[in-house]
Formats: sequence, C-alpha cells, structure tokens
Amino acid sequence: MESEIPTDISLVWEKLVQSGGRIVYLILDGGGGLPHPETGKTAYQEAHTPNLDQLAQSSSCGLLELVGPGITPGSGPGHLALFGYHPLRYTLGRGVLSALGIDFPLQEGDVAARVNFATVDTEGRITDRRAGRIATETNQRLCETIRQTVRLDFEGEYFFETVSEHRAVFVLRGPGLNAKVQDTDPQRTGVFPHPAEAETADSQQTATLVNTFVEQVKEVLNNEKPANAILLRGFERYEPLPSLQERFQLQGLCLASYPMYRGVSRLLGMDLIAPPTSMEAAFEALGEHYGDEHNFYFLHVKGTDSRGEDGDFQGKVAVMEAVDRLLQKILALDPEVFVVTSDHSTPAVMAQHSWHPVPVLIHSQYARSDKLPQFDEYHCLRGSLGLRPGIHLLGLALAHAGRLKKFGA
Amino acid sequence: MESEIPTDISLVWEKLVQSGGRIVYLILDGGGGLPHPETGKTAYQEAHTPNLDQLAQSSSCGLLELVGPGITPGSGPGHLALFGYHPLRYTLGRGVLSALGIDFPLQEGDVAARVNFATVDTEGRITDRRAGRIATETNQRLCETIRQTVRLDFEGEYFFETVSEHRAVFVLRGPGLNAKVQDTDPQRTGVFPHPAEAETADSQQTATLVNTFVEQVKEVLNNEKPANAILLRGFERYEPLPSLQERFQLQGLCLASYPMYRGVSRLLGMDLIAPPTSMEAAFEALGEHYGDEHNFYFLHVKGTDSRGEDGDFQGKVAVMEAVDRLLQKILALDPEVFVVTSDHSTPAVMAQHSWHPVPVLIHSQYARSDKLPQFDEYHCLRGSLGLRPGIHLLGLALAHAGRLKKFGA
Repeated sequence: MESEIPTDISLVWEKLVQSGGRIVYLILDGGGGLPHPETGKTAYQEAHTPNLDQLAQSSSCGLLELVGPGITPGSGPGHLALFGYHPLRYTLGRGVLSALGIDFPLQEGDVAARVNFATVDTEGRITDRRAGRIATETNQRLCETIRQTVRLDFEGEYFFETVSEHRAVFVLRGPGLNAKVQDTDPQRTGVFPHPAEAETADSQQTATLVNTFVEQVKEVLNNEKPANAILLRGFERYEPLPSLQERFQLQGLCLASYPMYRGVSRLLGMDLIAPPTSMEAAFEALGEHYGDEHNFYFLHVKGTDSRGEDGDFQGKVAVMEAVDRLLQKILALDPEVFVVTSDHSTPAVMAQHSWHPVPVLIHSQYARSDKLPQFDEYHCLRGSLGLRPGIHLLGLALAHAGRLKKFGA
Repeated sequence: MESEIPTDISLVWEKLVQSGGRIVYLILDGGGGLPHPETGKTAYQEAHTPNLDQLAQSSSCGLLELVGPGITPGSGPGHLALFGYHPLRYTLGRGVLSALGIDFPLQEGDVAARVNFATVDTEGRITDRRAGRIATETNQRLCETIRQTVRLDFEGEYFFETVSEHRAVFVLRGPGLNAKVQDTDPQRTGVFPHPAEAETADSQQTATLVNTFVEQVKEVLNNEKPANAILLRGFERYEPLPSLQERFQLQGLCLASYPMYRGVSRLLGMDLIAPPTSMEAAFEALGEHYGDEHNFYFLHVKGTDSRGEDGDFQGKVAVMEAVDRLLQKILALDPEVFVVTSDHSTPAVMAQHSWHPVPVLIHSQYARSDKLPQFDEYHCLRGSLGLRPGIHLLGLALAHAGRLKKFGA
C-alpha cells in the first residue's frame, strides 16, 4: 500500500491521461518584467492590451516560477517546464542545445559538441577563444570548406554546421560512438588546445575520430585569419525524450519561427510548419492548421524577449500591443483551453533573462474566472491559480481540457 | 539527459553561483505573531514602524514557512533555512546544539553531549532530573570544581561548560572517539542513571571514558545538594557543515549577541565580531564593518522573541519600534540586497515559538516593488514573493544580488 511519492508531478498526470479538448499555448517569450524606473509600471501594465485584459477577466490567472526560486531559466528549461517536462529532470547539455539551437535534426545516438572557431599563434597556443567573433558569413564559408575537404574514415558521417558568429556545432553519427570524451577547449588563452581524451575504453574510437577531425580542420584553416583553429566542448549523446504523445497523448504543432524553440518542439515530437515569416503569419498559420490532426498548438512570440534583451522597454510594450491586436485570431477558434504565459521574465531594465515569476492565464469553460481587470505581474498575484512552479501548468491545461481522469475511485 | 530531481533546491543554486552584490539579513527573531485578542492586531500591525513600512512599499514582500506546514522551528532549524541549509537535511542533534548554544568552538570529530545536573537519593535513584533548576551561578561553580578535579587518562581532553540553570555541555576531543554511546539519562525519576553503553565495538573506548567521567563527577558532587549527579544524553559527533563560502561564495559576518545564533553562524563559517552589547551597538557595528571583506551580513534582533516568549505583547511591539528607529543605519549603507524577516513566529498570546509563517521583504534594485502600505502578516500575503518555504529565501537573495547564473541555455 505504501509507494514512493514522485518528486515530479508530471509522472502522475502521465497515468491519468485520456482524450479531450484542444490546448493552445501562446508563449510571449520573456514576457514578465520589472517596473520601469520612471513610471513604476511593467511592460504588461504599460501596454494597451484591451483584448488580453478582457480575456483575463474571464480566465483563471496566476504566476509561474519556471524552474525554481531565484533561478533564471534559459529558453530550453523554461519551455520544458511549460510543456510538462521537469527542467531539473530533463537537462539539456551544451552539445545537444547547440544542435537544437539551429534546429538540426538530431537522431538517437548522435554525439554532438559545441564548437568555437578560435585563433592560435604560430606555435599553436590559443590567443582568442572566439576568433574575434567572426561574422556569421565567414563562419558559413569556413564550415562549407571544412565539409568539402575533411573526410573521416568510419562507418558513419559527421555534420559541421554554423550557429552564428564564432559558434558552430559538430555532430558524429554512426555505430559505436560514445560521448565520454573530454573537451578540447581549455576555456582559457595562452595554452594549447587539449587533445580529445577518452574518459572510458568505450569512448576511445570517438576520441580518435574527434582528434582526426581537429587535425584535418587545422590544415584547412591554416591560412585563415583570425579563425585558424577550432575548440570543442560539451560532447553529449542525444537521447530522445519521451514525446508529448507518449506521455500525455498530445500531438503538438509548433508554430515557432526561431530555431531554438523549433528544436525543443522537435525534441518533444511535435510536428512543425515551415518557419512563419512574421508574427502575423504565425497567428494566421494557427487558424489554417487548427483542426483534428493536432490537439496541442504552440504559438511562440519572440519579440517580447528580444526587445527585453535589447533593454528596449517601449519596444517590448509595442510587441505586446501587436500581440493583443492579433488575439482575436486565436479567440475565433474558440479552443477548449487557451493559455497565455511566458518561459521566463526578461525585464528591459536588466536586458537579460531573470528569475521573476511570469503572469499566466488559463481560459476555458471550466476555469474559475477571476474577473481581474488587467493581465500583469501584480493583478495575477490575486488570481485563482496563485504563484506556482512552472511544471504545474501542463497538468492544469490537461485538466481544463478534460484530459485527466479522476485519481483513485 | 535524464537526471534526478534534487529535493533540496539549494543544491541547484550551488551550481549556479557567481560573484555579485552584498546581502544584509535583518532577522527579527520570533517576529511573526498572532492578533492580540483585544485589538485584533498583530505586533507588526500594532507597532508604529514608518521606516519599515516605507521600505516594504519599495520591496518584494511575502511570507516564509520556515521548516514545513505546522512545524514549529527551533532557533537552529529556523536560521539554517534562512541561510539556505535545508533544515530537514541538515539536522543538528542535542549535543551539538548545546555546544553551539554557548558558542563553544567545536572542532571536527568532537563528541558532544547535553548534560543535566540532577538529584539522586542515597541509593543513587534519580529524584529530580533537573536538580531543582539550580541557579546558573551554582552551575558555574560546580563546573569549575569538576574541571579542576576530574582527570581523564587518554590522549585528548574534555570540556565541561555551563549552559544555564541545570544545563551544561560535555565535550570529548581526541583520537579514536566515537559517538555511538547510549544516554545515561533514563528520562524519568525513581530509577538509577544508565551506564554509558557502547552501541558498537568502535565506541567502547568512548563509553568507558564517559563512565569514568561520570564516576569521578559523582565523587566531586557527593556533598552537594541538590545537584549531586549528572545525566548525559544526545552524544553526537561534530561534523562541520559545508560553509556558506563553499556552497554559495558568501563570506558572512555575524553581528549577533546571543550564543546560539553565534554558534550557528560559526558552524556555517561566518566571521564573528565580539558580541554587541545592545541592539543599537549591533546596528552601529554593521556600519563599521560593512565593506569589501564580507558580502553577507547577519544582524540578529533577539528582543522580539524574548518578549514574545514572555507573553509580553506590548514589549514585542516596543522592540519592533526600536528596530524601526535604527533602520536608517542599514538603509544608509544601501546594500544591493536587504532582507527583513524572522526565523519563526513567537506569538505573545502563545508565549512560545509557533509554526505560523513569517513576513519577509527583499529590497533590491531588481525586486518587484509591491507598494504594500505596511509590513505585517496580512499585507505580506498579497506580496509578489507569495507564501513559500523558508529555504527559498537565500536563492532569491542570491538572485537579486546578481549571484546566480542562468540555468541552461
């Protein structure tokens, strides 16, 4: 009769899933914030968002703390929490995140690593770990040359892809690979790059492949300036996560434009449409694809985060107002559950991600409507969802969609 | 990619620490309370604290539940929680707490036990486990006599120190000690004290030392009345906790006067100033020592708890008002993060510690200011920190001080 209490509540939802209504997530990336020093108002408070405010009045509102108290979520962990994947259980390393960040279609068993183009002196000592932050176009040219020239002799293949500026990603695919390989990047200048060292007997072959690759790249880049070497770190084997379908019977559709969010969606088994070319296009696409094929829709708005990271408070306000003008396109679909929230805060005053909880609303026939006059960081504190961990959201969305059975008799 | 979810969030902060701003903790011991039966106001509500209320307006407010729902914290666990040490993980036993309670400088491997002076009849049966609660001065005289007279023949030393009234502490220091020794205190009257029994072969030497000590003490106290015997319980080996510096890169300075709080601070590796002789002196000392040498300051106010334990509601109010008049001394330092809270409630109406959550505020450039008109048990409920476990506080303080890196990319 006694059993372990799961530390991850999503493991309980998994056992209760059934079919039910459709769920739409509208994620305003980095939507939460801090008051503007002059006006004392946050971007949500400053923005003129009559549609969102009206929606909030007939919704359950609250605040989500995405990963934990004081913990500033990266985009990966923030979204994993929203999708019901505990971000302290499902941790994504540097290699896999780099690949996801360019929406590279990783396959099970792939070994991925983050790459820096770097500068070494005539003796081979590192003088700049970022090769003066070369232009992305230079990076693309170098990657193309490397792909044309470098050949690895094994029963598999490699991929070498531009991320941006000095950043690239290296992926090995094939039999017998093992990611227990130490970084070649010593993370400081004035020293030689490390050889890739195997941490176990099983990873010897992979380490050898990496060293062969690095040697050949050195030849290729010999006359390049400033990017005449590469440094690799964060070797990681890709293990697909259990999908939203497997865990929650959710067949998702991703309507995000940016590679990182597309990558995370792919990781969870969502279908993807071609990247929408604008925010309007993404909202339009939702209407076009809304139907019986999917029961979970992920509409991602990047602008709120981008303007926040720029420190552009008014820009962030403008994005929120633009979202508000498009809101009717979602409301017209009348989804059984409509969620508006964020993956983390990005206060313009900090110009970076922050730990502050984010407003959330759940609109549904079965939501307690809080009749709050406005959707913002302060009013949502008084909402019926309270202040809760981000991982709670998916369970609440599933419940409101009629997708969770009763627990016990 | 899958990993264990730590049940203790402070383990996550440990991995994210970086350098940042200074943190000042002002702890009003036992500050939280219950409404006075006649006025319906708590001490925080009754107290005229214009400075604290103004501070609250520009701070994030909330309530902390220190150990868990319904759990009344002792001073040790309450403070450990505030300092980021999960009080269910880091438990301090009776022996170590007794030594900490007199600020005895325990060393790693010391074996400590709590001592009662007791009364036994002519046959040796216990008639009073507390020797009529002898005066502390009597206790001090007896301890001095014991130290002068009793000699233990081993490659180490012992310490025997007054706590207060009938309470003392016994510490063994030396090679080969082991704390797996059973209590000599049978915890009831009408029976003989137990001999110290070894629970393992390894603890035989220690048990023998304890028995030799008890026998010699019995000789020394032979003609004393009523304190003619001692009872020992809670043998415990002292294992230093990982310090605030190791865990969170915090070099703390303790400005507490009372031994228990100084002991806990020492345990966590804080530096200590000589005990301030008054509350004013403690606030003054903060200003004098505030600088680059420390990045964490612990200012402890005992009066709120003492008056609460006395059942003296107005006295508790008066202490809060006195704190309010000194508040400017902290505000003038403009610390990057300033926290005001308590280690537990001590409602005057209960005249003891209680489980009720305590008000908390975090003042910082990066705190959402809640614009609450007053700092008390009811207004703080509407604050942006919400009602949370006490262990959350340090992570939030670290974040607001810029001392936590982003989690994941």
